[in-house]
This record gives sequence, C-alpha cells and structure tokens, in this order.
Amino acid sequence: MKPHEIEELSFSIIEQEAAPHGFEPSQWRIVSRMIHTSADFEYLQSVRFHPEAISAGIRAIQNGQTIFTDTNMAKAGIRKTDAAKFGCRVECLMEAPEVKKQADANGSTRAAAAVDAAANQVKDGIFVVGNAPTALMRIIEQIKAGRTAPALVVGLPVGFVNAAESKQMLNRADVPHITNVGRKGGSAVAAAVINALLKLTAEKGE
Amino acid sequence: MKPHEIEELSFSIIEQEAAPHGFEPSQWRIVSRMIHTSADFEYLQSVRFHPEAISAGIRAIQNGQTIFTDTNMAKAGIRKTDAAKFGCRVECLMEAPEVKKQADANGSTRAAAAVDAAANQVKDGIFVVGNAPTALMRIIEQIKAGRTAPALVVGLPVGFVNAAESKQMLNRADVPHITNVGRKGGSAVAAAVINALLKLTAEKGE
Repeated sequence: MKPHEIEELSFSIIEQEAAPHGFEPSQWRIVSRMIHTSADFEYLQSVRFHPEAISAGIRAIQNGQTIFTDTNMAKAGIRKTDAAKFGCRVECLMEAPEVKKQADANGSTRAAAAVDAAANQVKDGIFVVGNAPTALMRIIEQIKAGRTAPALVVGLPVGFVNAAESKQMLNRADVPHITNVGRKGGSAVAAAVINALLKLTAEKGE
Repeated sequence: MKPHEIEELSFSIIEQEAAPHGFEPSQWRIVSRMIHTSADFEYLQSVRFHPEAISAGIRAIQNGQTIFTDTNMAKAGIRKTDAAKFGCRVECLMEAPEVKKQADANGSTRAAAAVDAAANQVKDGIFVVGNAPTALMRIIEQIKAGRTAPALVVGLPVGFVNAAESKQMLNRADVPHITNVGRKGGSAVAAAVINALLKLTAEKGE
C-alpha cells in the first residue's frame, strides 16, 4: 500500500468505528485526525470547541500568522510544508537562551517563560500547547492581562498535575480555543489539530 | 511548584492509581514513564518486554550506540543531553535526501526507506519506531535477512492499518524488543521508553 492509501484506509476505519457524534463536518475533520494520531476514541467525548475556534484558526493561517508550540515535539509534528504554503512559521521558544535564563531566574518552567517571550510577538497568532499545563495557564493569564491576543489557543496538555485543570480554565476563557476534558492530550494530538486546520484552510482556497 | 516537583507528584499519582501489576522494578520504571507521557493506564496491560530488552538497551547506551528514530517527533521527545552523556547520538533519517529519493523510486514510505539507510549504519544500535508500521516491518525483515542486528527495537507505532500487526511480528521476532499489543503507541510514548532507559543507565553508573 502507498502512504496515501494507508491514510485513506485509516480514516475509513475511524468513520466506521466512531460512535454517532454531534460534531459538525469541519469539527469532525479535526477530531477524526486526533483519533487517527492517537488511536483513542475517547476524543469523541472529550474534545471541546469554542464556537469561533475553527473560523479564527483558518483566518490566522490564511493571514500567515505564526504558530507557537510549547514543545519541539509539537513543532516536529506540524507539517511545515503545509504551513509554509500560507507563509506561516512554526516556532518553539523552549530552547531560546533568554527563555532558559528567565525560567532559571523565576523558578518557573521553561514552557511558561517561552509563553512570555512569544506573547511579545503574538498578534493574531496561534498558540499550541501539547505538554505543559504551566504554559497553558500562563497563556490564559497573559490574555486576561491584555498582554497577548491570539487568534486561537489549541490547549491539549497531557498529564496528572494541572493538565485537566488548565484545560478547564481554557474552556471558560474568552478566547477561541480547541481543547478537551481530562488528563489526555499530548504534542502529537495538538499537532494533529493544526494539521487538520491546515488542510481545511487549503480546501477553502481551492 | 517547580518542574521536578510536578514530575514527582505525577509519578506518585501513577503509583497510587496503577492497578497491581507484574512488572519487575526496572520494567515498571519504563511502563510508568509511558503512562506519565500518555495519561493512559492501558499500557499496564498492553506492554510486552523481551527478556533481554532492558539489559541490552542499557548496554547499548553505555557503549554510546546510536539511537535511530522513525520520526522527528520521536527524536524531539528524547532527552538529548541525557543521551549525550553516554556519547549516544539520536538520529532520524526521514529528511535525508537519499531516503526521499529511494522512497519515491520504490513507492514505499520514507519511514521504510529510512530503515534501509540506518541498517547500513546500525551495529548494536537502538531502533525506535513510534509512528510507521512500515518502518517496524522493514526492521524485522532486515533483521531476518541478516542485514542489521540492533541491540534493541522499541516498536510502538500507533494507528489503524498494520500498527497492531507489525507489533505482533516484533513480539515474535528473535531480537530484544519493547512493544505493546493493540493500536495505541506513538512517538511520545516511544521516546518515553528511551528516556526511562537513559535514566536506568545513569543510575547503573552511579
């Protein structure tokens, strides 16, 4: 089988096995890609969309806005050639020397310090969090303080300490967002959301 | 909370919530890190260890062998500073020009072509597959053909087409391996196995 045949067959299996769901077609394109990446049908129940999330995400991509990720894994998972078609850069500031310095100085995580560095640069960009609840909480804090105004926040940190809580905060926040309920998530699933949005945007342009 | 406190608390929650299991202490260090990365307790039931997997993996790391990953995501998830302490390089050949060329010529996946390229270089190294069943099947094929003899194969591709089947093949293969049963897996979980092995190796040396 050729690579694109493997992908097509995978999505047809997901269609067959997915329980009936209430997602609109564009939402389902995103959720089915999250399931494709994780082989985990729990996302059928757990994903939450802000009503403006998809339109805001597509607009940001069309405008060539920067996509900031909390980890190099999420960055690695995003299809850079798809993003580059719209002039979107994909950035992770975790390894930036000033970020490491600030995190050491504050005793905070580097993920949170990276948010502060990105907040200075983000205007209508997209934040992607697949790992660090501290990054997601910091984004929400910076939005509330009026220091950043991203077009979309994809918040899918995974884990046992504050992951679920940070996503609950995002779900209540006044910013377009895609998130889920519970502990699961991760860089691969977060990258899958962006890859699905890149595909939806490409189709809009055709 | 400081980053190391978040990690400690996470692992203590995993200890509490994990059902009784039959893993030996060093196996549990690996499985608990897989759960930490995925928030998925299914790994308690699904992980399979070849009896020599952990000792062979530790020996390969002590000897500074190369760790080949099938994706840049898995590479991004491995703690390079921990690997560098033992002189281990972490390599992904997916983007290598000769790999792309060979995949196009054969109509195969780039992941499988990357295995062929790595097979020429791997002597007692570690193969890590977190994404592509085609890569894992190719590794097993090359081992059987005597064209490569890795110290350890970490086989955790995720997905709906051949992921479970390729892992079943690995589980029967005559090579030290760490794998699981079923569709789940992924680059983050595969990287977590290596990060746990790096920690186990570091403790051996102390």
